[in-house]
Amino acid sequence: MIKIGILGYGNLGKGVEKAIIKNKDMELVAIFTRRNPNNLNVLTKSAKVLSVDVIEEYKDKIDVLILCGGSATDLPVQTPKYVKLFNVIDSFDTHAKIPEHFENVNSSALSSGKIGIISVGWDPGLFSLNRLYANAILPDGKDYTFWGKGVSQGHSDAIRRINGVKDAKQYTIPVENALNAVRSGMNPDLSTRQKHTRECFVVLEDGADRNQVEHEIKTMPNYFADYDTTVHFISEDELKKNHSAIPHGGFVLRSGKTSDENSHIIEYSLKLDSNPEFTSSVLVSYARAAYKLNKEGVSGCKTVFDIAPKYLISKTDEEIRKTML
Amino acid sequence: MIKIGILGYGNLGKGVEKAIIKNKDMELVAIFTRRNPNNLNVLTKSAKVLSVDVIEEYKDKIDVLILCGGSATDLPVQTPKYVKLFNVIDSFDTHAKIPEHFENVNSSALSSGKIGIISVGWDPGLFSLNRLYANAILPDGKDYTFWGKGVSQGHSDAIRRINGVKDAKQYTIPVENALNAVRSGMNPDLSTRQKHTRECFVVLEDGADRNQVEHEIKTMPNYFADYDTTVHFISEDELKKNHSAIPHGGFVLRSGKTSDENSHIIEYSLKLDSNPEFTSSVLVSYARAAYKLNKEGVSGCKTVFDIAPKYLISKTDEEIRKTML
Repeated sequence: MIKIGILGYGNLGKGVEKAIIKNKDMELVAIFTRRNPNNLNVLTKSAKVLSVDVIEEYKDKIDVLILCGGSATDLPVQTPKYVKLFNVIDSFDTHAKIPEHFENVNSSALSSGKIGIISVGWDPGLFSLNRLYANAILPDGKDYTFWGKGVSQGHSDAIRRINGVKDAKQYTIPVENALNAVRSGMNPDLSTRQKHTRECFVVLEDGADRNQVEHEIKTMPNYFADYDTTVHFISEDELKKNHSAIPHGGFVLRSGKTSDENSHIIEYSLKLDSNPEFTSSVLVSYARAAYKLNKEGVSGCKTVFDIAPKYLISKTDEEIRKTML
Repeated sequence: MIKIGILGYGNLGKGVEKAIIKNKDMELVAIFTRRNPNNLNVLTKSAKVLSVDVIEEYKDKIDVLILCGGSATDLPVQTPKYVKLFNVIDSFDTHAKIPEHFENVNSSALSSGKIGIISVGWDPGLFSLNRLYANAILPDGKDYTFWGKGVSQGHSDAIRRINGVKDAKQYTIPVENALNAVRSGMNPDLSTRQKHTRECFVVLEDGADRNQVEHEIKTMPNYFADYDTTVHFISEDELKKNHSAIPHGGFVLRSGKTSDENSHIIEYSLKLDSNPEFTSSVLVSYARAAYKLNKEGVSGCKTVFDIAPKYLISKTDEEIRKTML
């Protein structure tokens, strides 16, 4: 059994717990939290629920620690810190800061002899893998990534910060015509506006000015100004009833030529009922890889690009060659 | 520059030559053939065209030899033989015999210190990779593979062997309703007949009995009897004009649950103008991996499951983390 620890018990931590239940070669040993451990209601009765303050005591009782904090402030500190004690996995997703994060984690990991796999999930993660495979195979081609239909946490938060907004959910929606133009091999040049639309469901505070709120959303730079945005005002009950789920997904396509005559389309897509549960399942499969690779003596910071696929699965090399090749 | 040799100059060998032209870090050194080298009209004027009899002289002049023979009789002999001299790549696709082929190639490769990557292409190959990744991430789920729309060489050959048939092309076509049922997350149980249909374009010999030929096709065990098959009789000119291309493709899907509430669909698809040119492009990217891994001291038989994605591409680890993650 691979012994797993979870740090952070929000949506992602809860998803990791559920993913461990689905993987028979793994055991959840402990959940570490910055909150009062007594306030956590966990599914796995055999797991300890502990303050993060005692995490060091688990140094030799856990094979892999899965870090379930956020990319803004948690992971830049936690990943380099905890890879000194544990093999770790994180889902660091601030694309622009990945090189810096990699260096920080790598130097800690090399000194401790542990492995830290960063930026695991679906984007970055599975989408990145598909970009890499498709680029390697079709060097003369063009990449497209579409996201959605799904809830963007960042955009929902941005709406919630507007004066007069009580609550909000924002969906990112890929434009079907743009997607089909790519699939047809037309290699279109697509602007931001042509690729995605944004749909917002907003609950107003009593007495708020709906025209003012709608205007503020639609003109918000970076988040909405470059998109065709629709705003719906709904009741708090309706938001709870119809918009509580966290679906997401998307498409990675590459269109490329192997000769003047012949073009090809490689398409990868995800349709996810729950973004955090799926992301967690990816984290857990890379936790298995971290465990196996560290047993082989590998240390340092790694990404999905560095991990041979066989390490992700709980079957022998003979089995996968026989049943999956 | 990575120095490549090609053994066999049929559709696949020609595709490898075109793929090398698209990859700036590679150079085609020589094409080896069992035919008279003077009869080959190759694209790469700088490449030598030689009899396979002199291949041993190129032992130290070629980094990777790409084997472009067939799985029935060529590769079972060639791959174990030539991995004694070269790093090799093959596209061995007799699924049931992969374990045996692996063992033969592995013992030769370990003794020579070379690497042999077998069963490279799209199925086996990229489809296998997607089955593995999706199974590792969603252990509680169900796999589906659909092929087509595309030309099946094996089925076209089977029709050509019927008395009275002059020429033929067979297309394998996935059933759209079945595909959509899988995409909807219904987890259907699908029979052979429900997944694919077969469409045949047949040119008859003068005086052949079209009813007899149609009956023989539709009742042929293994090839057609289990499918809804349509047969069209056309002229030789029409076959040449409309059915000379070798398109193919297909879909790998996995539908799985991460909890009682939440299901997810992972879908990978290929739409290929030319099956051999695309397969060749996959072979060439794994040739790069064989070169890099052997430089690192790795030897033995490998499959796509054993190769970390970064080895496939001609960019540094820093570049791919910065631009593709």
